[in-house]
Amino acid sequence: MKKLLLHLDTDLVASTFDQAVAYDAGVDNIIAHGGATRDNVTAHVHGMIFTRGGKNLKNSAIFIGGSNVPASDLVGQAVKKAFFGPVRVSVMLDPNGSNTTAAAIARKVMTNYDITGKNVVIMGAGPVGQRTALYLIKEGAAKVTLTCRSMERSKATVAQMKKAYDVDVVPGETRSDEAVQALLKDAHVAIAAGPAGVCIVPKSSWASSKTLEVIADVNAVPPLGVEGIEVMDNGEQRDGVRFYGAIAIGNFKMKVHRGAIASLFDSNDLFLDETTIYDIACKIDNA
Amino acid sequence: MKKLLLHLDTDLVASTFDQAVAYDAGVDNIIAHGGATRDNVTAHVHGMIFTRGGKNLKNSAIFIGGSNVPASDLVGQAVKKAFFGPVRVSVMLDPNGSNTTAAAIARKVMTNYDITGKNVVIMGAGPVGQRTALYLIKEGAAKVTLTCRSMERSKATVAQMKKAYDVDVVPGETRSDEAVQALLKDAHVAIAAGPAGVCIVPKSSWASSKTLEVIADVNAVPPLGVEGIEVMDNGEQRDGVRFYGAIAIGNFKMKVHRGAIASLFDSNDLFLDETTIYDIACKIDNA
Amino acid sequence: MKKLLLHLDTDLVASTFDQAVAYDAGVDNIIAHGGATRDNVTAHVHGMIFTRGGKNLKNSAIFIGGSNVPASDLVGQAVKKAFFGPVRVSVMLDPNGSNTTAAAIARKVMTNYDITGKNVVIMGAGPVGQRTALYLIKEGAAKVTLTCRSMERSKATVAQMKKAYDVDVVPGETRSDEAVQALLKDAHVAIAAGPAGVCIVPKSSWASSKTLEVIADVNAVPPLGVEGIEVMDNGEQRDGVRFYGAIAIGNFKMKVHRGAIASLFDSNDLFLDETTIYDIACKIDNA
Repeated sequence: MKKLLLHLDTDLVASTFDQAVAYDAGVDNIIAHGGATRDNVTAHVHGMIFTRGGKNLKNSAIFIGGSNVPASDLVGQAVKKAFFGPVRVSVMLDPNGSNTTAAAIARKVMTNYDITGKNVVIMGAGPVGQRTALYLIKEGAAKVTLTCRSMERSKATVAQMKKAYDVDVVPGETRSDEAVQALLKDAHVAIAAGPAGVCIVPKSSWASSKTLEVIADVNAVPPLGVEGIEVMDNGEQRDGVRFYGAIAIGNFKMKVHRGAIASLFDSNDLFLDETTIYDIACKIDNA
Repeated sequence: MKKLLLHLDTDLVASTFDQAVAYDAGVDNIIAHGGATRDNVTAHVHGMIFTRGGKNLKNSAIFIGGSNVPASDLVGQAVKKAFFGPVRVSVMLDPNGSNTTAAAIARKVMTNYDITGKNVVIMGAGPVGQRTALYLIKEGAAKVTLTCRSMERSKATVAQMKKAYDVDVVPGETRSDEAVQALLKDAHVAIAAGPAGVCIVPKSSWASSKTLEVIADVNAVPPLGVEGIEVMDNGEQRDGVRFYGAIAIGNFKMKVHRGAIASLFDSNDLFLDETTIYDIACKIDNA
Repeated sequence: MKKLLLHLDTDLVASTFDQAVAYDAGVDNIIAHGGATRDNVTAHVHGMIFTRGGKNLKNSAIFIGGSNVPASDLVGQAVKKAFFGPVRVSVMLDPNGSNTTAAAIARKVMTNYDITGKNVVIMGAGPVGQRTALYLIKEGAAKVTLTCRSMERSKATVAQMKKAYDVDVVPGETRSDEAVQALLKDAHVAIAAGPAGVCIVPKSSWASSKTLEVIADVNAVPPLGVEGIEVMDNGEQRDGVRFYGAIAIGNFKMKVHRGAIASLFDSNDLFLDETTIYDIACKIDNA
């Protein structure tokens, strides 16, 4: 029986990237729809759950993507609501690749590195930054600061995270190089999760820190997010700091993405979102 | 050679349900287009008939679906018109699942039950009700009444059926429980083919009939179309009446749908519509 | 590893024809997007080049089609621009089938026929006519005249071809039967590459020529482009002239189209456009 994936994308055109990854994860055919909203996906979900029965349901699954993370979350809720108890299929939410990317960052940072009790600064309070914070707190970091260019937005973001996940994240502002330097002064881990093509951490900001042990950056487009990092860095040490660049992170992200899609077809009741995709990354990392 | 299906859908977004069924019927790849109209399908039909030749043409086929049945019928005519004599591929029309659902209802009703000379009342004069009427008349029912909430609309519908298929259907109105009860008073078979979530036949309406032998209902969403029926009923008897619920009908509908799609690839000249899909249901039922 | 094809179509709905051919060329799955413009394809290209690495990249490829040839060329340029050096996939441009059709015409005309030093008249200055002219000049034709109903447009077209390919094509006008007859008077090869359903060469126009040796016509819809030709003609001789009709040309075009798509997966760095698809046609013709 064919492995069928319903791809619901909140962007108008369904992502080529996500479809290509799904095929490499063993999907036989994709039924892709762009323009997904919480109001128009019910019939599509029914199209998946009512066409196969019983044990065969696990050969059907749903992927939800799109560059708008909150919109994709709403679609995720609508998909769940369209199920009828056990008459359901497994679902993966990875809008903008945020869950798989954050999981990859967290696992890279923790390669032969004990995060317990560490002080982490994550620059970029978008979905990737938020989820990375979530995973590192879960793994025992003592303090995680999440920053963006506006303290007001950072505060709103950590308040929302407290409400959603009951985690304590410290809000921060990184409007100037001095602000970054001050934040990194006693940090052990610095993560640049900001927009592509913007250097947020000049060398002076990280080199002056006496405590920094690990720096990661997801930006693959020059100028990189951290001055002095290389996109291929995969734990390379310079000035006593281990670096993880965008390609090393990206390669592991691909494994997590493929692994998560593949796992959808193990049963018909998985719901892989920002709270569960990290567990898959751990399994893959330890395999 | 791959089995290719061109899926033309009169809805803006091509049906997930119909695509999933097609894959389970053995289709290798689907080329799906929503927004199909009689004015924009010719090039797509040519794309199917001019890419493979001779004996290979039977590996290409066309499915026409959509929630708007008349619009889909027009697309069916446009598809036929785009063929060049023997340079054609097999076609299946099943807008809104109406043909396969009606065929399933008719076959279920006739399970170990001779319809010859029986009096049938079908509540719901939409495509499913119309096609069910057509099949039961063909099989020998003495009288088939097709009802909706407006006698005027029922009359127009049966007039159109007379013109299209040369069959005599009796128009009816079911605006009140009393009207339903009066219709069922001397009926042998009652079929609820109305909208989901609406009970059209309260228990008092059918329990008071001394002639009723079979009741079927395609509504799977509570409240069901017939009070006292269960969606899983598959010939269960209560109060001397056999019941067929939405899931029993739906399961057989899936077999008919898959069987009809699969048969498209036996030759390049089938045209499966409301007049021919029933024959496939009979074959599957007797297999 | 699956052979994945990204199909970018400048038409709003992705071509069924091109997708069907791709499946017959060995593609496992197509990710199709209509409405492609030079401004919206970068993310899709990245979706192909960043999902597989190294040697596996050759299993991903891009097809660019659409009825608007200049728009498709712009998409081709945007696709190239989205590559990162060797991080690229093979690409085929065949908007409106123009490259594969022109290559098929040229190869058919040259079947056991030496084009060296010959005088060629191509009626129809659209993409198919232009590319046919390009190929026949490349193969040694002494003079190629490209005509349409307006000398001004013909002049603009040949000027553009001079600029793009550094070839000398003679502009012509075919507004009347007399003009056609005058052009064919001392021509060896006449090619009708005009719109479907229009006869541009009445019998009197070609029968009066004492020099004509080959006539080809891509129009399959009556009235054909050349009076007296048959769509099935595949080198048939009548009145001392060899004829190639639309179906003979079309059958070879299909081979070229399939062969070109198949070759995309031999390496990750092919760019098949109007300048290179002809070479594939030669290889297939000689195989």
